[in-house]
Amino acid sequence: MPNPTAAMLVIGDEILSGRTRDANMHHLAMELTHFGIDLKEVRVVSDDPDAIAQAVKTLSQRHDHLFTSGGIGPTHDDITADNVARAFGRAIDIRDDARAILQAHYDRQEIELNEARLRMARIPDGATLIENPISAAPGFTIENVHVMAGVPKIFEAMLASILPTLAGGAPILSQSLHIMRGEGDIAGPLRDLSERYSDLSFGSYPFQRNGIFGAQVVIRGSDGARVDAAMAELSKAFPE
Amino acid sequence: MPNPTAAMLVIGDEILSGRTRDANMHHLAMELTHFGIDLKEVRVVSDDPDAIAQAVKTLSQRHDHLFTSGGIGPTHDDITADNVARAFGRAIDIRDDARAILQAHYDRQEIELNEARLRMARIPDGATLIENPISAAPGFTIENVHVMAGVPKIFEAMLASILPTLAGGAPILSQSLHIMRGEGDIAGPLRDLSERYSDLSFGSYPFQRNGIFGAQVVIRGSDGARVDAAMAELSKAFPE
Repeated sequence: MPNPTAAMLVIGDEILSGRTRDANMHHLAMELTHFGIDLKEVRVVSDDPDAIAQAVKTLSQRHDHLFTSGGIGPTHDDITADNVARAFGRAIDIRDDARAILQAHYDRQEIELNEARLRMARIPDGATLIENPISAAPGFTIENVHVMAGVPKIFEAMLASILPTLAGGAPILSQSLHIMRGEGDIAGPLRDLSERYSDLSFGSYPFQRNGIFGAQVVIRGSDGARVDAAMAELSKAFPE
Repeated sequence: MPNPTAAMLVIGDEILSGRTRDANMHHLAMELTHFGIDLKEVRVVSDDPDAIAQAVKTLSQRHDHLFTSGGIGPTHDDITADNVARAFGRAIDIRDDARAILQAHYDRQEIELNEARLRMARIPDGATLIENPISAAPGFTIENVHVMAGVPKIFEAMLASILPTLAGGAPILSQSLHIMRGEGDIAGPLRDLSERYSDLSFGSYPFQRNGIFGAQVVIRGSDGARVDAAMAELSKAFPE
């Protein structure tokens, strides 16, 4: 059975302007690979209502899961929740359970739960909350879309709380070999190997070290014995 | 006149599996902002012919420029050039000028220009070559699509060579202010300001320092005097 597939949607002008370097894509990619969900595509869009709603529609229809990052804070440019609701034709309003979480959090800190902060309790109808152990304001899951914060520590904590609740596939195993030859010398034998082991995926990633060209060849697949066999052949073809 | 718009397409299984952390998106975003081209969306797709061709079609039609990164090396998984050609219905084959560049490069190093390396001379009909000062194999521009390597140093060098040939807009100026208050306290005044200065963009990026919540507020726009005026009001609303 093939693994479940996923997409990611990163929301935020700050990524597209270069002000902030996204860190969540790489984290999600590693976690999903480990968990046996295949991340198939990522999109980054600006804080634009139509861009968000359209991407949510397209990506949630195309994949088993969609993970979003960013745009769920208290400021005027935090419009993710509203546009995820819009993508599914759901109503959205301040929800009592989310408000109670925020109220308790801000009471403890003796900070006012003002109108802006209350925006973070806006949850689409029918969504399930995702716990935020860092700063309380919850994410949520609606249909197959998991809406999470953009701040890396919060994103990572939210992901850690939902991942065990999803159905994973076979974790992808990988082995890699450093070959101190130019990629152009490796390409022919690698193509042969990839044709005979068509159930595995083969990647070749060139590097240059002290002026010498080399490549790291990575073999990936869910069947460990097959990965071992292919790697044995590759090592034999390129002895150190 | 609004600035030209752009999209980016990152191609590669290694990004989606988490093996490699993409660095080119952040670099492109900073360079384009500096140059006055608005990066509006980014997509990351796997080494899949249809995914590449479809994304090239969609993004090149929607924006003034599309920049691609990755998939133009000598190995079997380097399929970007062929699928960019397919997206435009162009023929693609080994082209003499590209072959001559590779031949000279490998002759100097006394390396054979074998069949795998010759793949890097496959250029769609009507494309213009983009110089690669690092490892010779050229990128290319076809229509409004700029096809570049995924290795960051090569991507950066290729971008540096084409950016001056494009028509830029007004560079986006930005100023930022650290405010040691929770985002929820900043959100109200910031919304008022953003309504009165609707020609500017306002971002708020929360952080936590020694247990104290604060936010960096960034004001961006192409009119320096307007950015100054808005920043003066913001500073007055949140004196240190």
